Amino acid sequence: MIEVQNDPEVKIKELGLSLPQAPKPVASYIPTMIVGNLLYTSGTLPMKDGKVAYLGKMGEENNSIEVGQEACKLAVLNSLSAVKETIGSLSKIKRIVKVTAFVNSANGFTDQSKVVNGASDLLVKVFGEEKGKHVRSALGIAELPLNALVEIEFIYELN
Amino acid sequence: MIEVQNDPEVKIKELGLSLPQAPKPVASYIPTMIVGNLLYTSGTLPMKDGKVAYLGKMGEENNSIEVGQEACKLAVLNSLSAVKETIGSLSKIKRIVKVTAFVNSANGFTDQSKVVNGASDLLVKVFGEEKGKHVRSALGIAELPLNALVEIEFIYELN
Amino acid sequence: MIEVQNDPEVKIKELGLSLPQAPKPVASYIPTMIVGNLLYTSGTLPMKDGKVAYLGKMGEENNSIEVGQEACKLAVLNSLSAVKETIGSLSKIKRIVKVTAFVNSANGFTDQSKVVNGASDLLVKVFGEEKGKHVRSALGIAELPLNALVEIEFIYELN
Repeated sequence: MIEVQNDPEVKIKELGLSLPQAPKPVASYIPTMIVGNLLYTSGTLPMKDGKVAYLGKMGEENNSIEVGQEACKLAVLNSLSAVKETIGSLSKIKRIVKVTAFVNSANGFTDQSKVVNGASDLLVKVFGEEKGKHVRSALGIAELPLNALVEIEFIYELN
Repeated sequence: MIEVQNDPEVKIKELGLSLPQAPKPVASYIPTMIVGNLLYTSGTLPMKDGKVAYLGKMGEENNSIEVGQEACKLAVLNSLSAVKETIGSLSKIKRIVKVTAFVNSANGFTDQSKVVNGASDLLVKVFGEEKGKHVRSALGIAELPLNALVEIEFIYELN
Repeated sequence: MIEVQNDPEVKIKELGLSLPQAPKPVASYIPTMIVGNLLYTSGTLPMKDGKVAYLGKMGEENNSIEVGQEACKLAVLNSLSAVKETIGSLSKIKRIVKVTAFVNSANGFTDQSKVVNGASDLLVKVFGEEKGKHVRSALGIAELPLNALVEIEFIYELN
């Protein structure tokens, strides 16, 4: 019973969320790489149905803090989907180690931390305080591939 | 005696510097994360007395190279303060592994390397040549949280 | 025979490429750092004969996608040269773990992925599919040291 409550995939459902389709491996790079007990991810975009779902820069009119946070949450879910595809179950994640978040930022936008809370808070909700807390960097990047609103790298520790 | 001379905390005092108050853990992320013998830090801002002490972009009139270097030094001290808070003593640091420095840069500013020398040189002064030398990246970022002048990530190896 | 065919240094020659002179260690930071079986590199610029060979931003007229890809290839070769200088032979590389590529980007340039394929594809050509595939991030950075067109960090796993 306790095990079920602690299952991150159950928790994702309880939060009314779901894992998107795992990103397909492309030619020369791959979504995840395991070295020892660490799993590194590629920079992850907020993809939905094979498209970037959040575009443009923070600081532009249509991209409120809430929209930026939703983009971060979707990037987290894409990352977790890739991890599940690789290791079979999210319950094999021991801890979230590091989140490096690049927020596409218009000139003068300095609320990257609030935006990236969308990612950090979701990880803590899904994995709990002890496993979910992580180090992170929130950065305001000039441009991102496909004009994505955010790109996030993750390091996970595996059991 | 030799041990005292090699103590990084003694060295910091000898350099006329001091560790600022350790950053307080925030809701969903934490200042440091130990995995195996590596300690990862969150992106660290040049904080003093709870505020960002260096603001704006390099390339703006008031932010000379020297000011940028001071900002980097202060970010290093904040990072070391967080490490001390986590592991009790800086003498438990075996080596500085990696410094990733994001320098808030106005259009056309390309002297990020000189700015980040403020961080690299201080680490070598405090830890000595052998322990202090590290790999690093110096990058010119578009925007940073709270309009900080620099944000720096560190990886330390522990004894 | 098979060993020779799989030798990455032979492969580099077969591709008509060569390793540039290894970057010289500078005062306070170094080109490579080995921790356990991982080798981290400093942010690597597309250097040739001691100078940055590719300047400016993607999105500017003279910097086509092909030029950006060449810059990435040269950064890879510089990185491999530094690795060879450190460990003696590229055949000691077990896998390419991670490529973090910062592409100097003019406002509105969003084809960082295509540019960074220059790095990823070369690594797979030199090391083969199994060893060469890696996780990566492609990012559009506002400014880079010395106005370099790209700066790339690598993590290699060693045998």
